[in-house]
Amino acid sequence: MKPITVYDIAKEANVSVATVSRVLNNTAPVKKETRERINELISKYQFQPNALARSLSKKETGMIGIILPDITNPFFPEVLSGFDLEARKQGYTYFLCDTVSASVDTAEQYLRESQYLNALAEKQVDGIVMMGGRVDLAKPEDQLVEEVVEIGKRLPVLLVNGRLSKSGLNRVAVDEKHGAELAAQHLIELGHREIAIVGGYQNMSNTMQRTSAFMKRMKQSGLEVRKEWVLHGGFSVASGTAFMNQLLELPHRPTAIFCLNDLVAIGVLKAAVKAGIHIPEDLSIIGYDDIPFASNSIPELTTISLRTHELGRTAGEVLHQMITKSKVNKTTLLKPELIVRESTRALN
Amino acid sequence: MKPITVYDIAKEANVSVATVSRVLNNTAPVKKETRERINELISKYQFQPNALARSLSKKETGMIGIILPDITNPFFPEVLSGFDLEARKQGYTYFLCDTVSASVDTAEQYLRESQYLNALAEKQVDGIVMMGGRVDLAKPEDQLVEEVVEIGKRLPVLLVNGRLSKSGLNRVAVDEKHGAELAAQHLIELGHREIAIVGGYQNMSNTMQRTSAFMKRMKQSGLEVRKEWVLHGGFSVASGTAFMNQLLELPHRPTAIFCLNDLVAIGVLKAAVKAGIHIPEDLSIIGYDDIPFASNSIPELTTISLRTHELGRTAGEVLHQMITKSKVNKTTLLKPELIVRESTRALN
Repeated sequence: MKPITVYDIAKEANVSVATVSRVLNNTAPVKKETRERINELISKYQFQPNALARSLSKKETGMIGIILPDITNPFFPEVLSGFDLEARKQGYTYFLCDTVSASVDTAEQYLRESQYLNALAEKQVDGIVMMGGRVDLAKPEDQLVEEVVEIGKRLPVLLVNGRLSKSGLNRVAVDEKHGAELAAQHLIELGHREIAIVGGYQNMSNTMQRTSAFMKRMKQSGLEVRKEWVLHGGFSVASGTAFMNQLLELPHRPTAIFCLNDLVAIGVLKAAVKAGIHIPEDLSIIGYDDIPFASNSIPELTTISLRTHELGRTAGEVLHQMITKSKVNKTTLLKPELIVRESTRALN
Repeated sequence: MKPITVYDIAKEANVSVATVSRVLNNTAPVKKETRERINELISKYQFQPNALARSLSKKETGMIGIILPDITNPFFPEVLSGFDLEARKQGYTYFLCDTVSASVDTAEQYLRESQYLNALAEKQVDGIVMMGGRVDLAKPEDQLVEEVVEIGKRLPVLLVNGRLSKSGLNRVAVDEKHGAELAAQHLIELGHREIAIVGGYQNMSNTMQRTSAFMKRMKQSGLEVRKEWVLHGGFSVASGTAFMNQLLELPHRPTAIFCLNDLVAIGVLKAAVKAGIHIPEDLSIIGYDDIPFASNSIPELTTISLRTHELGRTAGEVLHQMITKSKVNKTTLLKPELIVRESTRALN
């Protein structure tokens, strides 16, 4: 059965849609007899005034669009849960738009982002949150940026944990550099001087920021990272395993590894254990993100918390401010935290 | 800036909304001069015909509502990714409605489900998918069932991986009993005769189905499960740790443990390793669900795959059939699979 609409009520009451609307919204007087006939039909069909119709006249939808690359990457559900908390408080619901990056190439992913951007704008959502994908590119093509800027002229667009260079769009992000500095400092304080950096993609801004901030902090302590110990090319568990196997083939090995996310760290851990290396006795491993699973591995992972829940919550707050035209800072930076667990230890 | 609407175009063109609509939808002739003036404004403002307005007249929204208990539980993103694949193919987008069960009591959770059900019906989504929460109850209160049945009279409602007794609603589910039988058979074939069953909640249908099917299969082989080895009361890693610690205090311990989900299995694994027990040499552990992390633990987890991606994909397919009024089976059952990894071994 199709839901009853205002059109059905109008037809059966033999009045215009405008008259039904007047009764529903109490915006203008309607003859008593007509009003009663309409009200009878409303209760007969348990008619619920249509949220879509209301949103049309109020010019707001109470809906937010969220574009992200992969809901099965545990980072994003965590951000979402924080966002949800805030969005619910403000009375929003949201469309989740997953570009399912894992199953497509990047060109296809950006195309899906474009499709979602346009669909959301057409649906007149009150605002859009973008995470991952092009937002994470170190040097996005002009066209990818311009498209978002154009949409941003029509409705609030908030970038989470990334940026689009020169876009001028609002962003909420975790201070990537500070997180990498914390990781470097932790390992240096434990006495490690030979440290590898593995994970990420060279064309992504998070990878470059984390890597260069880590190296800079090492340099401050007079330390260098060997070229052959810097391995990029993946953010998955499988790539972590591959990175570790690569390091295992080198004649000289690091005593600690900075992994650019937790999934990579778990892959590194698995490959190391399989090769008979004891963690943390023989090798210290530090991750990045603090996904829920970081505390479930054996040993539990030392990592940098991106405070993902708080990141999502803050994004919800900032987007609401943008929608209601409150004053908003262009950039809201959250400070990451070092979470020391069991996978790092002082160098023997 | 507010998005441009058909009302703004009409005002500036000094014509009625109906005239703009005629030009947009090409439903009736409009004087050439007027049409050109309207088209000029449409391109000037890059006006996109409003999807909401179109959906009102077409009586369909292209939107689906998905109600689930906790997006940070890795089971649900997996189902969603399969659902997404199918929904995208059929041209749907969806509202994700997370009742955030982890942070509330069950009464509050069911209330949120009610709120979402009503909000989605009011927004005239084309259909609703419900997972978890009341859908998983072994004996839901009548009122919780009736409410969903009422909404189900107005629009398609599909239950995923649960049921609402006597609701008559369509469901797509994994055959829980068969999964438990596979687990029991695997452990029995490995020579285990002393097996514990831990995890889940006694008021949830999945827990009761898995437990009783497992025991039944054991009985067929002349085996019993000791009463003190059946522990319910949680689906989290932390509860798994607690269950294992309880078992460790018993004078007589099982040689294998059937965990009612993977998170519990990981908690059991962690507590066992911490107590110096070697897995699988000293103890076999089998999980249930096959979440992505099941293959990332050390040792990798033997488990029952619920084929979550396929479950989501099938749900998308069935809901589309319901929306388009194709013939649909009341119940679509998927067969789970045994995934043998490293956490189970033949009894010495």
